[in-house]
Amino acid sequence: MNKNSSTKDLNLSNNERLAFESSSIFKPKKYIDIKPKGFRVYVLNAGFKKRLNDLLIIVFDKIINVSSLYSKTSTPSAPIIWDKLNNNGNVKALIVNAGNANAHTGKKGLKIIDKYVKHLCEFIGCKKNEVLVSSTGVIGEIFDPNCIINQINKINLKKSNTILEAAKTIMTTDTYPKISIKNVKIKKEKFKIYGFAKGSGMIQPNMGTMLAYIFIEPKISQVSLKNLLKKNVDYTFNSISVDSDTSTSDTICLFSTEANEYYCKSKRDLKILSSSLFELMQDLSLKVIKDGEGITKLTKIEVINSKTNKQAKNIAFSIANSPLVKTAISGEDANWGRVIMSIGKTEEKINQDKIKVYFGKNLVCKNGSIYNKINLSKINNYMKNKIIEIKVDLKIGNKSHIVYGNDLSNDYIKINADYRS
Amino acid sequence: MNKNSSTKDLNLSNNERLAFESSSIFKPKKYIDIKPKGFRVYVLNAGFKKRLNDLLIIVFDKIINVSSLYSKTSTPSAPIIWDKLNNNGNVKALIVNAGNANAHTGKKGLKIIDKYVKHLCEFIGCKKNEVLVSSTGVIGEIFDPNCIINQINKINLKKSNTILEAAKTIMTTDTYPKISIKNVKIKKEKFKIYGFAKGSGMIQPNMGTMLAYIFIEPKISQVSLKNLLKKNVDYTFNSISVDSDTSTSDTICLFSTEANEYYCKSKRDLKILSSSLFELMQDLSLKVIKDGEGITKLTKIEVINSKTNKQAKNIAFSIANSPLVKTAISGEDANWGRVIMSIGKTEEKINQDKIKVYFGKNLVCKNGSIYNKINLSKINNYMKNKIIEIKVDLKIGNKSHIVYGNDLSNDYIKINADYRS
Repeated sequence: MNKNSSTKDLNLSNNERLAFESSSIFKPKKYIDIKPKGFRVYVLNAGFKKRLNDLLIIVFDKIINVSSLYSKTSTPSAPIIWDKLNNNGNVKALIVNAGNANAHTGKKGLKIIDKYVKHLCEFIGCKKNEVLVSSTGVIGEIFDPNCIINQINKINLKKSNTILEAAKTIMTTDTYPKISIKNVKIKKEKFKIYGFAKGSGMIQPNMGTMLAYIFIEPKISQVSLKNLLKKNVDYTFNSISVDSDTSTSDTICLFSTEANEYYCKSKRDLKILSSSLFELMQDLSLKVIKDGEGITKLTKIEVINSKTNKQAKNIAFSIANSPLVKTAISGEDANWGRVIMSIGKTEEKINQDKIKVYFGKNLVCKNGSIYNKINLSKINNYMKNKIIEIKVDLKIGNKSHIVYGNDLSNDYIKINADYRS
Repeated sequence: MNKNSSTKDLNLSNNERLAFESSSIFKPKKYIDIKPKGFRVYVLNAGFKKRLNDLLIIVFDKIINVSSLYSKTSTPSAPIIWDKLNNNGNVKALIVNAGNANAHTGKKGLKIIDKYVKHLCEFIGCKKNEVLVSSTGVIGEIFDPNCIINQINKINLKKSNTILEAAKTIMTTDTYPKISIKNVKIKKEKFKIYGFAKGSGMIQPNMGTMLAYIFIEPKISQVSLKNLLKKNVDYTFNSISVDSDTSTSDTICLFSTEANEYYCKSKRDLKILSSSLFELMQDLSLKVIKDGEGITKLTKIEVINSKTNKQAKNIAFSIANSPLVKTAISGEDANWGRVIMSIGKTEEKINQDKIKVYFGKNLVCKNGSIYNKINLSKINNYMKNKIIEIKVDLKIGNKSHIVYGNDLSNDYIKINADYRS
């Protein structure tokens, strides 16, 4: 996925080319990688993308525990409907394709999944309800399941690709693969947790077109997996927003691969694990937002001293999603008035005469009006940074929330005004 | 305000120039105008704009009835706080300035208003609570009330400007003045209703940075005025959205000028009047949306057969405000999948297998997936129109709502990335 090497000879679609040409300024210079234990990774090309791999199949060594969360959309994609109908927390295999979301495809969409899942079940020897599926890409287009079936036949079950190759395979308008690895130590037991994700548009709470797969090596019960995921998702993947649009396809799966024999079950064990998992999920979700379509600035919006967490989150998202705040940041304009506007538009019960707003460490307003010692040249300088932190102190309580977003630039429009061509 | 004539020699700010250079494609070729009866109009330059008029003062012949509605923001501007504190439905004068919103200016902002209102009261002979004020422009900047007071001193009370001149004076990023006039006949009584408005950014329900003043010639009671305004605002000014941002300053005032001696009070009279008022308010609100910042397409989003009006409105706004739908329309891409996505993101209880979506008269999906006789070349052709109508038939009830919006183009970003310079 390096602009200068492997892709220049490829026959990319307009959209693929655009993604490379307008790589995020936050694109990492180096990638970590890992060959997983406890499962094998297969990356294939089913023809959804012109030349790049677009089909990921993961086969676990045994049937393991998984907990998944899905978009709260009322128009879920076929894979989300299918997973919810079929899977009960045991999994042997995962199939993900990129380039076609299999969304709003009705009963046909579900039958397509049935066909390629049935084929994988016969190929590896497992049951239908031990498979999970995800799809990302264009909404509304029916595809032929044989394009996936034919690729399954090509799998050499003895070999395995890496996690980085898996991350590359599920990209759509992403300009770089997203991967994260953490080492964890519980008592004397050392193990790894790692994951990968995709997503760069349609990103807003309830998990924008975001797919994320996270693997924990020790054994964990289904109930504990569910708790770990729910606990950490609100402050990571559900606290980022590229464009306030919520996808039909968002999925996050947390697997306990049992690659390590240790069984994490005590309260203390799970607490240690949860804290590492939070770091990993935050790292992955920040990698998603840093690849937000057309991003030129990353924004960190922190709302403190609110009455409730919900109030802080609501206000933080309102600021992060405001087109007028986003364009001001894109133009390096410390237009704090628009921050006030976007606080107000939530209709939350606050006292505007108490609000303090900071751009970085610079106070811009307090006591209901502009800070009389405001240092404009310092603030204008601050706005040139790649990461812009806006802090709002409501001074009416002791709750808080942080949301990460990005600016709104011409490239967002370039990427989305003609995504399908 | 014509690009080719009066403005080319003016010393405009960047922002003023940009507004002229990127005039809306919907800019009218001709303007109607009217010299009002029952009140006099004064347009002045208080220095908020470099050269153009920016201060509007209206003085009614007598104390008349008014009903006003304001932004539901929790960070209201000083004029909104001031009006709500002082005015009780009787009005002798209105003061509007453009270029400074007097928003988030704390107690200082209220004192500024007190000063220039006091001066006007002395100048024309009325009480403080018989004046209404509005301001639009940049948020957070304190200004010297003398810039308004000095202009008040220049007023020649015997003269009057026209409604068109009033409309021009309150413009900010507007690229054309918005004015509307209707003739009404009740029994044998003929009279006029007319109004003017401004607004082209920060436009979303609860009335975006939108100021509108509407005048009805016959006498109408305060209660009837209030009912007429409430009844008609939901389907007009509260059903348009440029960018989903809600201003700190939105105001709409409905005046009964008593320029005509007729007293509209019977149910039948008020019904006839309400229907004309609806047409006028719809016309004015469409003029606002057609001047949406960076507009290249007007969108009409109609949601029908919903369970409740609220559901239809919620879904219509979600589609109208989705950055991904807006950029697709800007790119003339009939990406109906994004319409499905934005229906889903509302989390409204619907049945996606029942949804029908039309682009113009062209059915694109039904029964949960793409329409099998979809005519792509016809739809692609349709997307080249200036006005794009999207109709969503939910088929789960008998309620409906229409919202007007616009696309998201590079010009929106150009206008807003550096508004203040």
